[in-house]
Amino acid sequence: MLVQVSPPAFAFADARAVRQGARRGELTGHTAGLAPGFVQCNLVVLAEAYAADFLRFCQRNPKPCPLIAVSEPGDPTIPDAGEDLDVRSDLPRYRVWQDGRLVDEPTDIRRWWRDDLVAFLIGCSFTFEEALAAEGVGVRHLEGGGNVPMFRTSIPCRPAGPFAGPMVVTMRPMSAAEAIRAIQITSRYPAVHGAPVHIGDPAAIGIADLDRPDYGDPVPVKPGEIPVFWACGVTPQAVIAAANPAFAITHAPGAMLVTDLKNNRLQVP
Amino acid sequence: MLVQVSPPAFAFADARAVRQGARRGELTGHTAGLAPGFVQCNLVVLAEAYAADFLRFCQRNPKPCPLIAVSEPGDPTIPDAGEDLDVRSDLPRYRVWQDGRLVDEPTDIRRWWRDDLVAFLIGCSFTFEEALAAEGVGVRHLEGGGNVPMFRTSIPCRPAGPFAGPMVVTMRPMSAAEAIRAIQITSRYPAVHGAPVHIGDPAAIGIADLDRPDYGDPVPVKPGEIPVFWACGVTPQAVIAAANPAFAITHAPGAMLVTDLKNNRLQVP
Repeated sequence: MLVQVSPPAFAFADARAVRQGARRGELTGHTAGLAPGFVQCNLVVLAEAYAADFLRFCQRNPKPCPLIAVSEPGDPTIPDAGEDLDVRSDLPRYRVWQDGRLVDEPTDIRRWWRDDLVAFLIGCSFTFEEALAAEGVGVRHLEGGGNVPMFRTSIPCRPAGPFAGPMVVTMRPMSAAEAIRAIQITSRYPAVHGAPVHIGDPAAIGIADLDRPDYGDPVPVKPGEIPVFWACGVTPQAVIAAANPAFAITHAPGAMLVTDLKNNRLQVP
Repeated sequence: MLVQVSPPAFAFADARAVRQGARRGELTGHTAGLAPGFVQCNLVVLAEAYAADFLRFCQRNPKPCPLIAVSEPGDPTIPDAGEDLDVRSDLPRYRVWQDGRLVDEPTDIRRWWRDDLVAFLIGCSFTFEEALAAEGVGVRHLEGGGNVPMFRTSIPCRPAGPFAGPMVVTMRPMSAAEAIRAIQITSRYPAVHGAPVHIGDPAAIGIADLDRPDYGDPVPVKPGEIPVFWACGVTPQAVIAAANPAFAITHAPGAMLVTDLKNNRLQVP
């Protein structure tokens, strides 16, 4: 991510502190590791004219696009996700898109907000990574301090209106025993991508080279390890870019919306 | 299995009918596919002197040795597993072992029964195979009519008293998507071996050649498929053979004890 966290992370131990830090402009970087235990979300903001198509897209593609909450049109608050939450100011950094081009990376979108905008909060793998790490199941990109490697696949999303395109996946290398356990653990988190979509041979889902991710940083697969692939929240961003709406706002990579929801509460059954 | 079923299988549609057919000597072959929905068990009978060690072995190795029920010493009934159940007569065929040698394959063990014998009922993969088949997840050995391929591995069981040795596993080849689903399904059945113990590379668990199972019939792994390995109820039989007790009785391969328990009732949560 572009910008470093300052002041130090311990100042942002709970979700409200993170949102208020972002709101005051004190937190402008990534949110990984902040407010442990709280659900962090991908943000997508679209004009109401696209909302029904995008909702249908999410409904048809729940693994890459698990919807946690949706705002009322024009309303920047989402009380279900946080009492004082304001999506215009509570993320550290945003990306503003016009006609498919990145036009701004502000730390606040109040000046871009309109009465016809709808905010979508989409689950993020941080939640299940916390559950994996709690059992010592390897999430090696975290150990290296890098971002998880992400790949465009040959798995098509089910289209809805202008929204269509391939699924993007994350990859985590694991021993066979860890992979089995990771499937069990993440199956309990359908609201944050759920079980893997693939294990083993990358070519089977159209990935030519694991050393060259489309997003994030490469992570080596060691001998005896199996690559394990999960649907990724970057999928809706890629799909929106391809759909090329006149206007859209997303979070900047790694700069998520931290909600008051607890990770453990997303666990089923 | 050695002996064919006669009369036809439809005469044995529920568990009690199967047991009574075996008791009357009308059913002397395998029980696969009989009494759908009812739990079938591996049988182990040992002298009481070995019971504590064997119970401890099962407790320490729940994946290959999931205990469904245990009789009182000298009592051939197990009301928890079936109102009228008598382990001396209700299996189609038995194997009697003396000093590690197979000495008899009777259809009834009344003449071998003693006041110091304890019967152990151990869960069997038939239960989870029914759950897999109900979702169309491949259990190819069933399609071919053969027995599932079984392999001795390099995975050591945790020893208890004289009982020690390697885990025996079954292998089922699956697509990646089926393997993920099969892990989810079988994780819900801890009483019948539960989740796989390994996926992928057979050499990692000491299996040299998938085409040469130690028990059962070979099943080819097709391109793009992953071999999925579950702990197997043959493990306790192999361990008992190695422990070489003066006397033991087991079921004959494939000729299981059909209980009144329902497969679905073993599902958690």
